[in-house]
Amino acid sequence: MFSVDLNSDLGESFGTYVLGHDRDVMKSISSANIACGFHAGDPQVMLKTVEEAVNSNVAVGAHPGYPDLMGFGRRNMACSADEVYAYCLYQVGAIQAACKARRASLQHVKPHGAMYNQAAKDLSLAEAIAQAVKDAGDDLILLGLANSSFEKAANKLDVPFAIEAFADRAYQADGSLVPRKQPGAVIHDIEIAAKRVIKMVTEGAIEAIDGTTIHLRPHSICLHGDTPSAVAMAASIRETLLKEGIAIRSIREVLRA
Amino acid sequence: MFSVDLNSDLGESFGTYVLGHDRDVMKSISSANIACGFHAGDPQVMLKTVEEAVNSNVAVGAHPGYPDLMGFGRRNMACSADEVYAYCLYQVGAIQAACKARRASLQHVKPHGAMYNQAAKDLSLAEAIAQAVKDAGDDLILLGLANSSFEKAANKLDVPFAIEAFADRAYQADGSLVPRKQPGAVIHDIEIAAKRVIKMVTEGAIEAIDGTTIHLRPHSICLHGDTPSAVAMAASIRETLLKEGIAIRSIREVLRA
Amino acid sequence: MFSVDLNSDLGESFGTYVLGHDRDVMKSISSANIACGFHAGDPQVMLKTVEEAVNSNVAVGAHPGYPDLMGFGRRNMACSADEVYAYCLYQVGAIQAACKARRASLQHVKPHGAMYNQAAKDLSLAEAIAQAVKDAGDDLILLGLANSSFEKAANKLDVPFAIEAFADRAYQADGSLVPRKQPGAVIHDIEIAAKRVIKMVTEGAIEAIDGTTIHLRPHSICLHGDTPSAVAMAASIRETLLKEGIAIRSIREVLRA
Amino acid sequence: MFSVDLNSDLGESFGTYVLGHDRDVMKSISSANIACGFHAGDPQVMLKTVEEAVNSNVAVGAHPGYPDLMGFGRRNMACSADEVYAYCLYQVGAIQAACKARRASLQHVKPHGAMYNQAAKDLSLAEAIAQAVKDAGDDLILLGLANSSFEKAANKLDVPFAIEAFADRAYQADGSLVPRKQPGAVIHDIEIAAKRVIKMVTEGAIEAIDGTTIHLRPHSICLHGDTPSAVAMAASIRETLLKEGIAIRSIREVLRA
Repeated sequence: MFSVDLNSDLGESFGTYVLGHDRDVMKSISSANIACGFHAGDPQVMLKTVEEAVNSNVAVGAHPGYPDLMGFGRRNMACSADEVYAYCLYQVGAIQAACKARRASLQHVKPHGAMYNQAAKDLSLAEAIAQAVKDAGDDLILLGLANSSFEKAANKLDVPFAIEAFADRAYQADGSLVPRKQPGAVIHDIEIAAKRVIKMVTEGAIEAIDGTTIHLRPHSICLHGDTPSAVAMAASIRETLLKEGIAIRSIREVLRA
Repeated sequence: MFSVDLNSDLGESFGTYVLGHDRDVMKSISSANIACGFHAGDPQVMLKTVEEAVNSNVAVGAHPGYPDLMGFGRRNMACSADEVYAYCLYQVGAIQAACKARRASLQHVKPHGAMYNQAAKDLSLAEAIAQAVKDAGDDLILLGLANSSFEKAANKLDVPFAIEAFADRAYQADGSLVPRKQPGAVIHDIEIAAKRVIKMVTEGAIEAIDGTTIHLRPHSICLHGDTPSAVAMAASIRETLLKEGIAIRSIREVLRA
Repeated sequence: MFSVDLNSDLGESFGTYVLGHDRDVMKSISSANIACGFHAGDPQVMLKTVEEAVNSNVAVGAHPGYPDLMGFGRRNMACSADEVYAYCLYQVGAIQAACKARRASLQHVKPHGAMYNQAAKDLSLAEAIAQAVKDAGDDLILLGLANSSFEKAANKLDVPFAIEAFADRAYQADGSLVPRKQPGAVIHDIEIAAKRVIKMVTEGAIEAIDGTTIHLRPHSICLHGDTPSAVAMAASIRETLLKEGIAIRSIREVLRA
Repeated sequence: MFSVDLNSDLGESFGTYVLGHDRDVMKSISSANIACGFHAGDPQVMLKTVEEAVNSNVAVGAHPGYPDLMGFGRRNMACSADEVYAYCLYQVGAIQAACKARRASLQHVKPHGAMYNQAAKDLSLAEAIAQAVKDAGDDLILLGLANSSFEKAANKLDVPFAIEAFADRAYQADGSLVPRKQPGAVIHDIEIAAKRVIKMVTEGAIEAIDGTTIHLRPHSICLHGDTPSAVAMAASIRETLLKEGIAIRSIREVLRA
């Protein structure tokens, strides 16, 4: 029987500012990447989101980012590997305490935005992140792109690694994502997205934008919850997967399968 | 045999900004209250300070504060108990991860500045802090003023509590500190300060500013490290205590004695 | 002919975070209090909101607040008068440059949230704000509560002062607002709110919550734009005023009348 | 008669954190680049530094930076031109108000750190900065590297431009600075530095690190004030220039000469 995890970025509200449809998307996913207060989120929002994940039977992950609230952690920054290590360790520790206080355990770490994108290509940053994941204990899983620096760093440092794929993004022949600015980069059709996810999970394959078939067998599929249509896509993909007999399980369970 | 802990606030540098003589004062103390990134400190500074404490055989404590870097956490803020709980839990978790990464264990939590002063008088805030200390696990000790809301909250929530006293501050007859703005509030004479500490540790008593004797048996003495003269006072008090046959031990060891 | 200004707090979005229905409420008001980056707003949001005000023929005001983005400037802080002076001058200068860049002139300054509430009662803070308003030049108008420290400070420092009243808030017999936590503090009925505004503008009077009549002749009425119902109330009050033959003019024009 | 301006970065303290020897270096310079609260400085520090500049008869300049206090504005950030424009305009406006309050006028704008370095090579960023300088009014002068994007942007937008050179830095044959990591990049010998400055001012030439002579006639020389030895070098260069009969004047006066 096939199984896969569904993850989404949550807990991105800040103070008075509300972002995302956390409660709705929480119904469709099995793992939550919760913001840790640097690029988004604050201590109260983070704690409340951990609570909601626990109540929704969703596994909790850390979603550390750059210290750039004004840019939502989406702007590349020339941080050193030591800085990235310290930023990740700090944020992961903060959410570990929130988990402890709510009788949950932290499952995984998925870097956010520019930190994710830069580290996927820069091995020294990926190693800094993997080291922080390892040093924080709890046998945490690093969640990232297949064939990226994340995978290399996790293997080198013996950190559990889970591959994520994107339901609504087109791939290039080399397995990387088509940049958002290019036509066809984002898939808006829910049915097409669902079919692509099923093919990845059951066949370990996906059609690249140039028509070639590439190998990709993800442990987790990234969904979005920032707009009503994203929430609808998440719910639809969940339903389609269940109809196809694919089990939706947390990342840790999928890795064990 | 008498024993007492010596604590000091460390790790208050931020980015390029250097504050305090951490390495020097580290030689005189047995417990460090390390800033956690809200009122002072940043992830790299915090981690480095934990490392230095470990290398100096100094026990590590969290020193959480208000999110007010511009005011160094010294300005009273009307935060709710829920906010203070979340701020403490977040900061304690962040430093717990730094401890884990450096093979240390977190010993205690001492709130900083305005958070300390407001919670000492406001039971709801003190309970919020004590609850965060409890929920963060690790059997953490709350360090605070004797006869304050901290002590009541710790007792109510069954959180280990340690009493701190100040080497360089005058006391009022009710056991509270003489406000800094009043004459005689701060003791600058190293010998007098050392004698007062010895009397507190060996006799459980201290002379108040009005001449009356008050009962005060601290587990830990707060020293300062922000100026060269403060560092000199710390070193001198340490030497005097040792000459008097008083053992300088970590808070946890003093509590067990 | 009677005239009055209608003001609202705008430009409170931050980075990715969107707050308020600025474009809609802009249609109903004659003066905008634009956040200046401390409690809310950021340089891009502030500039864009100034642009929209200019395009909507709405006078621009500064809305400076405490440096507390996480608390949205709503938490009382123990800032000194010198700090409040510097914070106001800084924020007013920042929006003056935005005005200059968009060929607008800054009309007024209205402090936000906790700064407003604390200064309304604390003359030293109100004087600090009035001094900043004066020192920033441009013959800026201070907008605040009638009979408050603001009015005293403005008179003392010879700063133009405009009285604001609230369409949706009940008043006590002494002219102060009924605290939000008390029943009847907030008026939700649009018709009642509109009638109260008309009475204030045309008769200089308003009925207090205890039934007594108090004198209050505001230059500007504060409306809200944070919810669709608030936007509807703003539009309705505007229409009712116009039907009654009351002119809606900027604060500066009302003061000159 | 030859004349040149001497500039230095000041006002970089923040809250409790003290940085630089502002009062000492103020005695040697004719123009101060004052931090504006993003990469360093805060509203009180900025205002106080403007005061000190006025009292020291030093011309005031804005020193805007990226919103990265933790990295002191030294880390490259992928900000858009619109963001950089808004950040500069905001910071320049804030210091213009401080100048108005202290009866000074703002003379120039010199971007800080990573913003300076990125814009020197990226015309779109340099144009964004030059546009902000222009839109802020007051006929502000943009101060930057010779032959850089700054110069091109200033010329294109008809913004007054002043060339700065560095007393303690080696140059490459193309007129760019030798990167700090290379040997010989920084000149520590005070006499050599002073001689180089004199040659630049009187002959419009400087010897590059490869021995070739390059053309460079600066309007202003950048000095440092962050260490006692830097302060000593600043004082020494000032004295040497005066002995050589070179007048030390503000940037605006040098441009007029």
